[in-house]
Amino acid sequence: MSLLNEIKVLRDPVHGYIHIHDKIIWDCMNAPEFQRLRRIHQLGTTHQVYHTAEHSRFAHSLGVYEIVRRLITENEEISNALTDYEKMTVMVAALLHDIGHGPFSHSFEQISSYSHEDYTCNIILRDSKIHDILYAEDPDLPNDVANVIRHTHPNPLLVQMVSSQLDADRMDYLLRDAYFTGTSYGEYDLERVLRTVRVRDHRMVVKESGIHTIEDYIMARYHMYWQVYYHPVGRSYEAILHGLFERLRDVYEEDPEDVSHLMMFLPLLQHQMLTNRELLELDECSCQYGFQLMSKCKDTILRDLSDRALNRRLFDYDTIVSVEQEYSYKQWISSMGYDPEYYMYVDRTEARPYEPYKGQEENEILVLMRDGTVKRLSEASVIVNAILNGQNKNEKKVFYPKELNE
Amino acid sequence: MSLLNEIKVLRDPVHGYIHIHDKIIWDCMNAPEFQRLRRIHQLGTTHQVYHTAEHSRFAHSLGVYEIVRRLITENEEISNALTDYEKMTVMVAALLHDIGHGPFSHSFEQISSYSHEDYTCNIILRDSKIHDILYAEDPDLPNDVANVIRHTHPNPLLVQMVSSQLDADRMDYLLRDAYFTGTSYGEYDLERVLRTVRVRDHRMVVKESGIHTIEDYIMARYHMYWQVYYHPVGRSYEAILHGLFERLRDVYEEDPEDVSHLMMFLPLLQHQMLTNRELLELDECSCQYGFQLMSKCKDTILRDLSDRALNRRLFDYDTIVSVEQEYSYKQWISSMGYDPEYYMYVDRTEARPYEPYKGQEENEILVLMRDGTVKRLSEASVIVNAILNGQNKNEKKVFYPKELNE
Amino acid sequence: MSLLNEIKVLRDPVHGYIHIHDKIIWDCMNAPEFQRLRRIHQLGTTHQVYHTAEHSRFAHSLGVYEIVRRLITENEEISNALTDYEKMTVMVAALLHDIGHGPFSHSFEQISSYSHEDYTCNIILRDSKIHDILYAEDPDLPNDVANVIRHTHPNPLLVQMVSSQLDADRMDYLLRDAYFTGTSYGEYDLERVLRTVRVRDHRMVVKESGIHTIEDYIMARYHMYWQVYYHPVGRSYEAILHGLFERLRDVYEEDPEDVSHLMMFLPLLQHQMLTNRELLELDECSCQYGFQLMSKCKDTILRDLSDRALNRRLFDYDTIVSVEQEYSYKQWISSMGYDPEYYMYVDRTEARPYEPYKGQEENEILVLMRDGTVKRLSEASVIVNAILNGQNKNEKKVFYPKELNE
Amino acid sequence: MSLLNEIKVLRDPVHGYIHIHDKIIWDCMNAPEFQRLRRIHQLGTTHQVYHTAEHSRFAHSLGVYEIVRRLITENEEISNALTDYEKMTVMVAALLHDIGHGPFSHSFEQISSYSHEDYTCNIILRDSKIHDILYAEDPDLPNDVANVIRHTHPNPLLVQMVSSQLDADRMDYLLRDAYFTGTSYGEYDLERVLRTVRVRDHRMVVKESGIHTIEDYIMARYHMYWQVYYHPVGRSYEAILHGLFERLRDVYEEDPEDVSHLMMFLPLLQHQMLTNRELLELDECSCQYGFQLMSKCKDTILRDLSDRALNRRLFDYDTIVSVEQEYSYKQWISSMGYDPEYYMYVDRTEARPYEPYKGQEENEILVLMRDGTVKRLSEASVIVNAILNGQNKNEKKVFYPKELNE
Repeated sequence: MSLLNEIKVLRDPVHGYIHIHDKIIWDCMNAPEFQRLRRIHQLGTTHQVYHTAEHSRFAHSLGVYEIVRRLITENEEISNALTDYEKMTVMVAALLHDIGHGPFSHSFEQISSYSHEDYTCNIILRDSKIHDILYAEDPDLPNDVANVIRHTHPNPLLVQMVSSQLDADRMDYLLRDAYFTGTSYGEYDLERVLRTVRVRDHRMVVKESGIHTIEDYIMARYHMYWQVYYHPVGRSYEAILHGLFERLRDVYEEDPEDVSHLMMFLPLLQHQMLTNRELLELDECSCQYGFQLMSKCKDTILRDLSDRALNRRLFDYDTIVSVEQEYSYKQWISSMGYDPEYYMYVDRTEARPYEPYKGQEENEILVLMRDGTVKRLSEASVIVNAILNGQNKNEKKVFYPKELNE
Repeated sequence: MSLLNEIKVLRDPVHGYIHIHDKIIWDCMNAPEFQRLRRIHQLGTTHQVYHTAEHSRFAHSLGVYEIVRRLITENEEISNALTDYEKMTVMVAALLHDIGHGPFSHSFEQISSYSHEDYTCNIILRDSKIHDILYAEDPDLPNDVANVIRHTHPNPLLVQMVSSQLDADRMDYLLRDAYFTGTSYGEYDLERVLRTVRVRDHRMVVKESGIHTIEDYIMARYHMYWQVYYHPVGRSYEAILHGLFERLRDVYEEDPEDVSHLMMFLPLLQHQMLTNRELLELDECSCQYGFQLMSKCKDTILRDLSDRALNRRLFDYDTIVSVEQEYSYKQWISSMGYDPEYYMYVDRTEARPYEPYKGQEENEILVLMRDGTVKRLSEASVIVNAILNGQNKNEKKVFYPKELNE
Repeated sequence: MSLLNEIKVLRDPVHGYIHIHDKIIWDCMNAPEFQRLRRIHQLGTTHQVYHTAEHSRFAHSLGVYEIVRRLITENEEISNALTDYEKMTVMVAALLHDIGHGPFSHSFEQISSYSHEDYTCNIILRDSKIHDILYAEDPDLPNDVANVIRHTHPNPLLVQMVSSQLDADRMDYLLRDAYFTGTSYGEYDLERVLRTVRVRDHRMVVKESGIHTIEDYIMARYHMYWQVYYHPVGRSYEAILHGLFERLRDVYEEDPEDVSHLMMFLPLLQHQMLTNRELLELDECSCQYGFQLMSKCKDTILRDLSDRALNRRLFDYDTIVSVEQEYSYKQWISSMGYDPEYYMYVDRTEARPYEPYKGQEENEILVLMRDGTVKRLSEASVIVNAILNGQNKNEKKVFYPKELNE
Repeated sequence: MSLLNEIKVLRDPVHGYIHIHDKIIWDCMNAPEFQRLRRIHQLGTTHQVYHTAEHSRFAHSLGVYEIVRRLITENEEISNALTDYEKMTVMVAALLHDIGHGPFSHSFEQISSYSHEDYTCNIILRDSKIHDILYAEDPDLPNDVANVIRHTHPNPLLVQMVSSQLDADRMDYLLRDAYFTGTSYGEYDLERVLRTVRVRDHRMVVKESGIHTIEDYIMARYHMYWQVYYHPVGRSYEAILHGLFERLRDVYEEDPEDVSHLMMFLPLLQHQMLTNRELLELDECSCQYGFQLMSKCKDTILRDLSDRALNRRLFDYDTIVSVEQEYSYKQWISSMGYDPEYYMYVDRTEARPYEPYKGQEENEILVLMRDGTVKRLSEASVIVNAILNGQNKNEKKVFYPKELNE
């Protein structure tokens, strides 16, 4: 792996600086597929609530890379546990892990048949500038990087660093989203986490003395979910996008001519997997311009919904508890002259932050006790244990046009 | 002026919260012309250097409004010096002061015959949702707000708060740009500035005890210019945009069909003032999509330059000192097969941060001395005086395609 | 209540500024009994662990005052619920609530028969500059302020603001201790707490929308306990002070001449309540000087323990679980030639952070639900509920001289 | 140099963590002479103005050490320029550079015939735990460390890192004093300074690209002087201490019995250099206790001045410009019944922040230009040049008892 003549350092408010020593990282960063991430917001629709949450997946991806870089150079046990080739593999995987994201991630995945991970692997494995860079370095590298991302790499340590309950992805986004929203909920002591990680049996474990830091990290995540990621105003914007894309698909079936000039959306409407080239051209800028075009279509629903998206005319919401309630909202919306297919959206926010710690043991964060044994976090932490055995918080909300309330 | 039922508070990392009490502010904020500012970066091309500088003019405009709101409610002398109508006028002017900005501000102004202030006043004075909101409040309001923005309002205090050497605009952008770039250069003590402002003779003055805070503010500005605003990488991106728009105009003259589908740029190419509707549709998203379209034009220069803009293939630069040097660069670039018209850009960064304090006295920040007299800052501050009488720093750079150096 | 000619503002990193409008607050602040708090560390022995935790109860007391001042002026419901006299009462109580603290609080209370609250009320009620200031303002004021502090004031709202599960005392110390230790554990969103407080039935309640902020505040407290307040190194220093004061008392009984020159400790050794004058002279400076004198006494144990205190020769510790273990440590220490009376210390850290929410209902934080009803926090928050019903964390540690391990 | 079994890390809000790898650093830190620094405020009397500026020289000394440690390990050119023995020497010198400070530094030096540097070298060179630790490591080490401190070490690089216009001492105290006062004036980009330092001809130089960071650092220092270090309230407290020590000396001459019990001050009154043991016992705690004892002396001036010191009854001040004015203040104070010898203090604050850059060339910060030449900062920076050639700010204040104004 060749080094740059001079280390590149990029100022970053979350990490101080991002340090780039390796040519392959620099080249990947400058590839069109990576530069495109500048045109995808990290938090999809959240900047409609927290107006300063305008940061992109570009910045986040650099942050994830930086955390992995620090883990493999500053943490002695991780550094010793990996070969140079594995180090390169995991740094590249960290940098590229989000490269397949579509615009407004959630909404995009709802209308696409493929996940962003499918697209990420596709870009890494074939037909892209990124692929060429990796392949030129080592013909095995594209596949090895993709294996880290799809959890099939033989060394679980690499997978864990990029995607697990305690991975560089979360470590970066909690701090970054906290910084850019201006809330303090996502803050925890990253320095201490990096210092208390150890390796046992090819897995990351956390020293017992670091348990409180991990508890703090988990609570940070919990609060970010409820205060930021699940914020009803952000979800309301997603509800509009959801209706809009539903309607777009239906108009494309019924009156294709009315939408045939929306070039950026056509590949998506044909329902198959986008090519890397097509995905490259589909970013939030092209969507926003698409919404402008849509707002002049013949179809009145499409015109209305795209105008709402452009100018933030949001939906209202109520909390509901039963299927009966859901049904009566449907009746009411319909009776007011709105088609619930596009103008009603039910959102379930089911306590996801706990979930991972239930279920499969292999997902658990592991703790290295003072006596050398390894315990599951839920055993080692009274707080996590209490939360796991407590009642789940979950909420169901129905969204509908604000004017129905007036 | 009617109040909202409940104060709206928006989380903002720079100010803690933005507080909105008045319905007219809330309504302006939700107008399409203001929502469009979400799609214009505050720092044009700077996020190409400081990757987290992705904040928009939307957030900045709210910040300017908040500072003015605090000045007129928390600073006793300012509060007493203004009528309720004037307070509304200046708050609205602060909120709307940037509403006429085009995409990538500098580049836009270079190819447009009109300034962003012309457009701002146009939106306020006619044919827009914003205009309707102001007019409904008071038929004089549009004109009074525009007068604040074009420096023709009879009360200089209003003008000064929005646009002067010590205005809410700068007070916000220094802190905001520092926060989002992650540099500390732009920081100064805003709280203290707000507390040390007084009113004498319809002008803002600063108490003598606040001089060090003002010196710190001026140095903050100076350092932000050199470390952020004049950063050669950001200028390099502007150089590309400049060449691109030059070429676009020329192709439009020579082979209009090749660019006739670039709908978003057509009004601009016709060289007259854009209508409010046309400006509304011209944001950085439509530009970015336009660059995608351009990268498939027939014209090879347009294709090349738009690809550079999309994928950050930047120009290199050298510092030059003489017209002769400039000329020989032109020869060299031309001899290498590049048309200097589009592939060479000369940027003069002439110590602008000092300038204002020279020249006209009415532009000076005034200081209220302990003995009750009012002095110009350059007399009252040994630091500012030294800087004014010191040698000016200015630099001239020539930008050209990186590959010429390889 | 007379106002100052000019508001006094004191820079404070936690609150930005402390604002003092009222002459009585300014006068109390300048009284010798309050100035003495500069010579008492806020965190007793914690700066032996976190070397920057050198802040005093003086700074903390100003912070508690500032939070109460903001609550009664910025929070509309609290402002409306109180008379002017009650506002003055609660501000003064907030400022003075810690005035009776002895040096190294815990250790002091262990050897004194009276609590710091007893001393605080004593200073307020008689024979002090503070008393004179309050009495001159209103002859009832000393008694009313003391009633707030000893929880006997008829208006529970005043008591709650100064001392409850969600009081200005904790609100300040969590943020302040986090700032001065340099940890982030104690951070939570104070602004939001202040904004979501309401008054129902003469009690502070928190709006349902603020629950996550309160959960964050409770977790902040929990983490500060384990990471800072219960830190074994800090406790180790307390163990030494405990042995030292025990020994001092015993030498005073057995060989009074050896300690008769330790003027600062004599009143304490006579076992009765200190007079206000005696307490005024007993601060951490006089203790430290006392330790210097002690290190030259005849008694070898006193000399050794005071030298440990002065030069941070700390005790080691082990975690123990049973009374049997405790007993065998005692045997061991004794067999090594150390008297366990002074050289062994058992510290129980029993999950105090949960406790308050168990037990008496009147101690619970109350939540104002969207439907207008009031619930206990443990019912309204799944997190707090889970923690309450989870297993308690508690630890028992035994401390002994480090050299026993060598 | 032996390493610790496990790196010690100390949380520090300014640097994140202080890292200690070497046993000798850990041992020095735990020596009584170093632990004593916990009982000396970093900013002498400034916490009387900025109430949170309660940090000690202990914390600052660790910070200076940490900066030097980072310079010699993270900065490649500095690392390559030094032998391992030199690295140890400069780290130890950084840690110990303030070890000879007396209580309330300025006031102490005014009444002592020796500087804190004399005392520092004395502790390092003989008769102390610190000396023993250094000597045991290498018999030359005490002398080599002292040579760094007294500017006589043959390698100027070592001297510069600890004491020069751009040394670790200033780098730490600006950030630390800013943090603990809660002002932002002292902030500058430490990371960038550490990264832009190079070595030429055994001297530290700064890369041209780092000039703005250095300008910011110099302005930070300038503003800290005027806003913090020269703050008249802090000086007022020093005026009282000055009078108090003057009076103490005179009473000792005239009526020695009245002060013979002030054991902590006796060595000082005998006018010779204190022994290391005597200095060890003279800290701000013993002074504060001494003030308590003094407030019960027979001498009324001593009683009055010590009561002022204990209870912050400050002096007032006026700005004066001429010797005549100074004389008439003296007359007035005397005529009011106060002895100007103890109750009048004239303080000259002569623009010290500029000074160093004038005068001797060897004191200048040097800049490594892009073309490889080395320039003096005053030539390379238009700002520093302007300041150097500008008019000096200097002020003279006279302090006297507040009651004279009533």
